[in-house]
Amino acid sequence: MTLGSTPQESTDFPARMVWLVGAGPGDPELLTRKAERLIRSATVVFHDALVGPGVLALAGDARLVHVGKRAGRHSRDQASIDRLLVEAALAGERVVRLKGGDPSIFGRAAEELGACRSAGVAVAICPGITAASAAAAGLGRSLTLRGTARRLSFVTAHARAGDRLELDWQALADPGSTTAFYMGKAAAGEIAENLIAAGLPGSTPVAAVQNASLPDEQRITTRLDLLAIAVKAFAGDGPALVLVGAAVGPAGGNVRTARHDEVAA
Amino acid sequence: MTLGSTPQESTDFPARMVWLVGAGPGDPELLTRKAERLIRSATVVFHDALVGPGVLALAGDARLVHVGKRAGRHSRDQASIDRLLVEAALAGERVVRLKGGDPSIFGRAAEELGACRSAGVAVAICPGITAASAAAAGLGRSLTLRGTARRLSFVTAHARAGDRLELDWQALADPGSTTAFYMGKAAAGEIAENLIAAGLPGSTPVAAVQNASLPDEQRITTRLDLLAIAVKAFAGDGPALVLVGAAVGPAGGNVRTARHDEVAA
Repeated sequence: MTLGSTPQESTDFPARMVWLVGAGPGDPELLTRKAERLIRSATVVFHDALVGPGVLALAGDARLVHVGKRAGRHSRDQASIDRLLVEAALAGERVVRLKGGDPSIFGRAAEELGACRSAGVAVAICPGITAASAAAAGLGRSLTLRGTARRLSFVTAHARAGDRLELDWQALADPGSTTAFYMGKAAAGEIAENLIAAGLPGSTPVAAVQNASLPDEQRITTRLDLLAIAVKAFAGDGPALVLVGAAVGPAGGNVRTARHDEVAA
Repeated sequence: MTLGSTPQESTDFPARMVWLVGAGPGDPELLTRKAERLIRSATVVFHDALVGPGVLALAGDARLVHVGKRAGRHSRDQASIDRLLVEAALAGERVVRLKGGDPSIFGRAAEELGACRSAGVAVAICPGITAASAAAAGLGRSLTLRGTARRLSFVTAHARAGDRLELDWQALADPGSTTAFYMGKAAAGEIAENLIAAGLPGSTPVAAVQNASLPDEQRITTRLDLLAIAVKAFAGDGPALVLVGAAVGPAGGNVRTARHDEVAA
């Protein structure tokens, strides 16, 4: 099935090609127009567990193949996914590899790009809305503030069971920056402990957003030293993003510019 | 003009409301479906210079107001923009404030959110594809690599004329991270000099992308100690993003997973 809306269609998605497509945070309205077109044009879509039904419903006649980690049964390893993509392309399919968020941010895109290129398969990336952008939108907060929060860092707080997070806590414990911890819920206590030990005040604003952009989105805003307790209020086990820094506090939504009071008057 | 495609339409964009909408990097196909719907539903669209004609063409019957910095004449200050948004909403319009990239990332969203809230005007954010995601897609590279590039930082390299950049170079000079410098072209020499002085090897891979996602996109890949010379090859003066770190080097596109050679065989 194709949309037929743009002349690019046949030229940028021939058979035997793989597109790594960002599905965004979950709300099908937060797909890009390009992602929608590619999904509708695909003959096969390999998707993660984090890609929701609203997005998959756009796939038209394409075959849907679940290759994610939460498949219930055993998960496929990365090498198996690489092989599936390459084999489908070599068999003449138009292949979409659909990933939650943006493929270039904690999406293991490099492995799949490398596998395709080594096999002589054309591959390209269609970017997606990353979870931090969706969480900020849900909170109604900016991730950066002029003069106050001038650096934004993304890290992943996912470690193997029993392992401690290996992050440069000193670099992250900067009151002039905002840090987004992807998959941050389970490690909330460890995040707070390490940042405070590295010098960030316990009163630093934090926010956590679970299932950003979905109908069951849940949001918490609190302070760093209360983070571990606060995230226990989340119901369910959807992916959660933890945001740390002045930008996500009350002040971040109430920055006033010079002549602001004239506006409100 | 409205699309009439979803029942949300009348409920999430009533008159007297302001939506801060991410226009993405420039390619109208990289707008989200939600952004397109909001733009088509607006009665007035306030936009920056970085929002291109392809995006503005979607605005239907809405009045377009250019409030950006490159208007040719003198630019409007932030307080004037805040006032325009609030006045339009209070006059009963459906207001879209369209910003290049994502409103929450170096988009001065906090000022406009604060102005609206203080005036009792309902305001919300629709996220957009940020320039770093678009640049990575254009390069065909991931911004993160498992085990190798585990932190991703965004900073803005825009300083007032004559001022030096005030960044935490030590935190950025981490071989295990990737840094995206927004508006990085003019400061390319200063970026390289400071990162090398802070200990990052001159051989660190860098990439620069000007006009990411647009038909005249230009890309350079080189090494850190050659960055300042390399960016002189860019024609024109569009916005450029500079990416520093192992992830954007040749290795970043050729990561192999264990059973990869079986695939290519």
